[in-house]
Amino acid sequence: MGIDPGLTRCGLSVLQTGKGRQVIPIAVGVVRTPSDAELAERLLRLSNAVNEWLDDYKPDVVAMERIFERSNVSTVMHTAHAVGVMVLAAAERGIPVYMYTPSEVKKAISGNGRADKKQMTVMITRILGLGAPPKPADAADALAIAVCHCWRAPLLARTKAAEVLTGNTTGKGSWK
Amino acid sequence: MGIDPGLTRCGLSVLQTGKGRQVIPIAVGVVRTPSDAELAERLLRLSNAVNEWLDDYKPDVVAMERIFERSNVSTVMHTAHAVGVMVLAAAERGIPVYMYTPSEVKKAISGNGRADKKQMTVMITRILGLGAPPKPADAADALAIAVCHCWRAPLLARTKAAEVLTGNTTGKGSWK
Repeated sequence: MGIDPGLTRCGLSVLQTGKGRQVIPIAVGVVRTPSDAELAERLLRLSNAVNEWLDDYKPDVVAMERIFERSNVSTVMHTAHAVGVMVLAAAERGIPVYMYTPSEVKKAISGNGRADKKQMTVMITRILGLGAPPKPADAADALAIAVCHCWRAPLLARTKAAEVLTGNTTGKGSWK
Repeated sequence: MGIDPGLTRCGLSVLQTGKGRQVIPIAVGVVRTPSDAELAERLLRLSNAVNEWLDDYKPDVVAMERIFERSNVSTVMHTAHAVGVMVLAAAERGIPVYMYTPSEVKKAISGNGRADKKQMTVMITRILGLGAPPKPADAADALAIAVCHCWRAPLLARTKAAEVLTGNTTGKGSWK
């Protein structure tokens, strides 16, 4: 499951991995909460929606975009509150959470850490074999985050396996 | 209930209001989560602790310190994640959440919006009629936030009642 976190708009997606780099889209959507509602009400709505997705799709993993400092402090704070609620929902079910920076996601999908929104949409549409760009448009990011994890996870697993084989779990480079 | 939010250290307090400005301390404590644990694990522990307090003490209101931009962005983010989880816990029970800035809390307790930690501790010890400064020391802030709300709440309620009486709920100053 991929999450593009936000309080006003939160993108959610579910993918299934196939052979090699194959990724099969299962679900995509955007949860919105009214900006004139109280924070508590908005977080509750968001939490309910994410919990419903987790119950419906029972993902093995949640991949989320890591928040970066942006110009608007209030937006960052709201997003950080939302992240807290969503990480908690996954933690309550024992589902591991992985975070990726926007540039990691862009690089994994398009090969370019600075790809723009249009390029990303074109790539995601192609990768998932969709007949048209994903809708709603602001859910494309949630799909990209999920694909990013699917493609990086085997590498992460292989790195971990190699560390176990070599006994190098400390990253110190010994062969003990 | 007063909450001084944080991921590494979260102060919790419960007060009961008496006649006039009387405030009676019921409970105080600090929840800590290990800084080397994963975010998901830390938020889950914090959520469990806050939910236990809410179940045990069934507060009418939760008062929380509003986060301000500080030097360390990573700390602010962690605190913002924690706030999300705690506001959610209150929202799930329909308990209203009020936020106060640090200077609002300081002003309410000591009359000075820039009071230092020592002055605040002296004032809180006196206000609550404690024989010694509250322990753990870093829980004093949670008590101060709770007292701040207890003292401001009647004023907020009276302002609201006056607005209803005069029909001035828009703040526009009309007498319609």
